[in-house]
Amino acid sequence: MNTPIQDDYPEAASFCWGCGKNNTHGLQLKSYWEDEETVATFIPQEHHLAFPGILNGGIISTIIDCHGTGTANAAVKRMGGADASLMYVTASLFVKFRRPTPLDKPVTLRAQVKDVDGKRITVSCSLYSGDTLCATGEIVTVGVEQNDFIQQ
Amino acid sequence: MNTPIQDDYPEAASFCWGCGKNNTHGLQLKSYWEDEETVATFIPQEHHLAFPGILNGGIISTIIDCHGTGTANAAVKRMGGADASLMYVTASLFVKFRRPTPLDKPVTLRAQVKDVDGKRITVSCSLYSGDTLCATGEIVTVGVEQNDFIQQ
Repeated sequence: MNTPIQDDYPEAASFCWGCGKNNTHGLQLKSYWEDEETVATFIPQEHHLAFPGILNGGIISTIIDCHGTGTANAAVKRMGGADASLMYVTASLFVKFRRPTPLDKPVTLRAQVKDVDGKRITVSCSLYSGDTLCATGEIVTVGVEQNDFIQQ
Repeated sequence: MNTPIQDDYPEAASFCWGCGKNNTHGLQLKSYWEDEETVATFIPQEHHLAFPGILNGGIISTIIDCHGTGTANAAVKRMGGADASLMYVTASLFVKFRRPTPLDKPVTLRAQVKDVDGKRITVSCSLYSGDTLCATGEIVTVGVEQNDFIQQ
């Protein structure tokens, strides 16, 4: 397996609640390249429910968001010419919940870059439980100077 | 102050990670009527960050989602004629992140019912830090039979 995309993040991004390797209270999502798409597996915890047996929509939104921004940042590096001072952050997030997602199984996220337009990268993401598509998302990211979004 | 909307949820909905009063690991968001809109205040925890000093987008999405569904369920009751067997759950969630949201201050959510179309209720939500609008959301909910979404 190759290195998790989030392991290449700058220190300031390594504490993200959704995917920061240094956030010990967070979800620590890890995304990987698999050919032309990115893949992540997430194992829900018991308390991540919406209703008994059903994964929470906020948790689903969080991992789609983090997998989407991870994909955008990694895609820029892969395409070359990346400005190392830029970090791609979420401008908007759309999630469609297609059916209830079981809580007691791992979920798999698969994402692809849909569009690159200047400093704006749009990513499509699908969330599966086993082979069943449970949710889809679109993440619009924008490249910002790291100093612009770190306030401390 | 009147009773939190989520306190009226059926038992099965009281364990939601975002707003369930019985989820001791969750965010326990509480929403209230204030005239024709609903209001919730959320105090982020230190580990709810995206970047140092900035509130995580997944947490923002979660509380917008829970405040939105809370608004839909409460609005149906308020309008009368609610079918007690129906629960309004999220069909889709759109969040626009307008500017970084400070981590070290409470955020306020304000929501209004935007549209009612059969068993589909659309809610608009705004998230403020102090008086500053930081994010907006649209939550499309659908009324489902409780037995249809509870798998355990």
